[in-house]
Amino acid sequence: MTDIPTLRYNEGTIDALDQTALPAKMVVRRITTTAQLTEAIAKLRIRGAPMLGIAGAWGVAQAARRAAGRTGSTRAAVLAAAERAGARLIATRPTAVNLAWAVGRSLDRARLEAQAGAPPATLVKALEQEAAAIAAEDAAACMSMAKTGQRFVRKGARILTHCNTGSLCTGGYGTALGVIRLAHESGKNVEVLAGETRPLLQGARLTAWELGRLGVPHAIVADGAGPSLIARGTVDVVLVGADRIAANGDVANKIGTYPLALAATESQVPFIVVAPISTIDPFTPCGKAIEVEERDPREITGVLGRRIAPAGSDARNPAFDITPARLVTAIVTERGVAIRPYRTSLKRLLSR
Amino acid sequence: MTDIPTLRYNEGTIDALDQTALPAKMVVRRITTTAQLTEAIAKLRIRGAPMLGIAGAWGVAQAARRAAGRTGSTRAAVLAAAERAGARLIATRPTAVNLAWAVGRSLDRARLEAQAGAPPATLVKALEQEAAAIAAEDAAACMSMAKTGQRFVRKGARILTHCNTGSLCTGGYGTALGVIRLAHESGKNVEVLAGETRPLLQGARLTAWELGRLGVPHAIVADGAGPSLIARGTVDVVLVGADRIAANGDVANKIGTYPLALAATESQVPFIVVAPISTIDPFTPCGKAIEVEERDPREITGVLGRRIAPAGSDARNPAFDITPARLVTAIVTERGVAIRPYRTSLKRLLSR
Repeated sequence: MTDIPTLRYNEGTIDALDQTALPAKMVVRRITTTAQLTEAIAKLRIRGAPMLGIAGAWGVAQAARRAAGRTGSTRAAVLAAAERAGARLIATRPTAVNLAWAVGRSLDRARLEAQAGAPPATLVKALEQEAAAIAAEDAAACMSMAKTGQRFVRKGARILTHCNTGSLCTGGYGTALGVIRLAHESGKNVEVLAGETRPLLQGARLTAWELGRLGVPHAIVADGAGPSLIARGTVDVVLVGADRIAANGDVANKIGTYPLALAATESQVPFIVVAPISTIDPFTPCGKAIEVEERDPREITGVLGRRIAPAGSDARNPAFDITPARLVTAIVTERGVAIRPYRTSLKRLLSR
Repeated sequence: MTDIPTLRYNEGTIDALDQTALPAKMVVRRITTTAQLTEAIAKLRIRGAPMLGIAGAWGVAQAARRAAGRTGSTRAAVLAAAERAGARLIATRPTAVNLAWAVGRSLDRARLEAQAGAPPATLVKALEQEAAAIAAEDAAACMSMAKTGQRFVRKGARILTHCNTGSLCTGGYGTALGVIRLAHESGKNVEVLAGETRPLLQGARLTAWELGRLGVPHAIVADGAGPSLIARGTVDVVLVGADRIAANGDVANKIGTYPLALAATESQVPFIVVAPISTIDPFTPCGKAIEVEERDPREITGVLGRRIAPAGSDARNPAFDITPARLVTAIVTERGVAIRPYRTSLKRLLSR
């Protein structure tokens, strides 16, 4: 599906492309413990809502395999190890719901197998199957979203996107970037403006890197520039991903998304969210109920580790913002498109 | 008025604090030619709309003094040198109108003196007087704006600002930052959120530095974070400066201002522009008529000289955006406050 070795699992070992080293270097990190995996997730070496789900599921399988490998291991010990790993992984990043969703799905499977009396090795196998299924389903969901999203991309479209939503953060083509990739591959001659996405510069480092590999014409812009470029008429559609979508259609996504939605609405430019069903959280009634992760202020007072601010200056670093549903033109999922009112349209997609 | 040696002139020599070296180092650059001055302005070593006016006026005086020092110099040669320098200075940065305004005012004075038959030395003296007057008037204007702006700052106010609008870019207290400084000195216990202001990080480097020196509690935020912090109710007022204000009240200011105005309007938070009368251009009918400077894409593909984007990736780098008048709650000038409809209120202030 993609030639980028974002994350691979083999018999208890996760090999993950370290996204903090891109675009300068392609460094693959070998991860064999939950501690290493939570570190990689916390530091955003592995990132992006759907990929967090995939990584979480592999992390649970990995912990189970380690437990099963211990002498005298029991079914209960393996299940307990999987549950401990799952809890630690979920706690790493609170906003993206896919992580909790995938870990929960894996643990449900493990409990079901344990209840049925599965021996440790079978339990491990079941968790590995579940993780592989989550990854494969995500790849298929990406392709489905990419196809469905084409209705919002005309020939020659100038697309503005934010953060990174491609093969680096999904099991396949990506979400918003998957739509862009398929449009490019279909000969639509699209052009992309990519918000640099401070503080960690996922747009300038990762999206630009993916677009460059795919041969998609693109230009990076400062996060403050997106809204006025929309107002000036240089953008035909805004395509972004999501980290969590509330039941009413409010969207949590990377900090800097909300101003793009405001500007798009002001200029009547479509603002399209592309996200798999696993991103929708029916138990979160609205955006206000979403916990927004506050990250280390040093990500703001420095750029990629180099201090830029004066010694005494502090910073605030919310990692996400909430875009109210009224500013969202449509939500593209692998099961179809939701439009306002989202409470009913999302419910319909979820129960499909 | 301020203890920061932003810019000093003495007998043809300009000593300017190099703002690109802040906050790490205080480097004073000695400038003796127009070429050095245009370089310093183009590279943003000297910056900020009012300070560009002051620097421009000193630059014209400096060029006149150099011409007057040449053997056999004539009145016509000195005037021509001043005019050449003025034209080169104005061309350096097209958006801020204060630069053209101050240079024009100085050249008007020079032509008047030349017409009256002034000898070269008198011409130089007149230009130096004019530049000193422009600087002194700006300092007084700052204080007047700071006092008038207090009506928008309640005790304990949480203020969001953008870019740098303090003593580093004016002849005195500053524009928006002058209001903040006086509020702090009046014991209002204000707190400031400062947008970092990519690409050149004037907020994170310069505003944080000024606020730190003044002892004002502050936190730096990513440019993409300001709008959602407003939406979350953590901001009582947005205070910004301006690089040019059109006759209808549309405001050109540092890129990233427009999304703050959109968010403030959406959340009914006052969005206040603080700028001297010299920033208002009655000959620019509206925002669409303002030329927006596009700067070197390498400011975006790198951070302070260090490449962050992939080798093949390009960037767009508009330095300013336009905030439509309808999103501006009030414009504070040294002659009073303008409110909607700005066409009439600004006209009234201009003719006062």
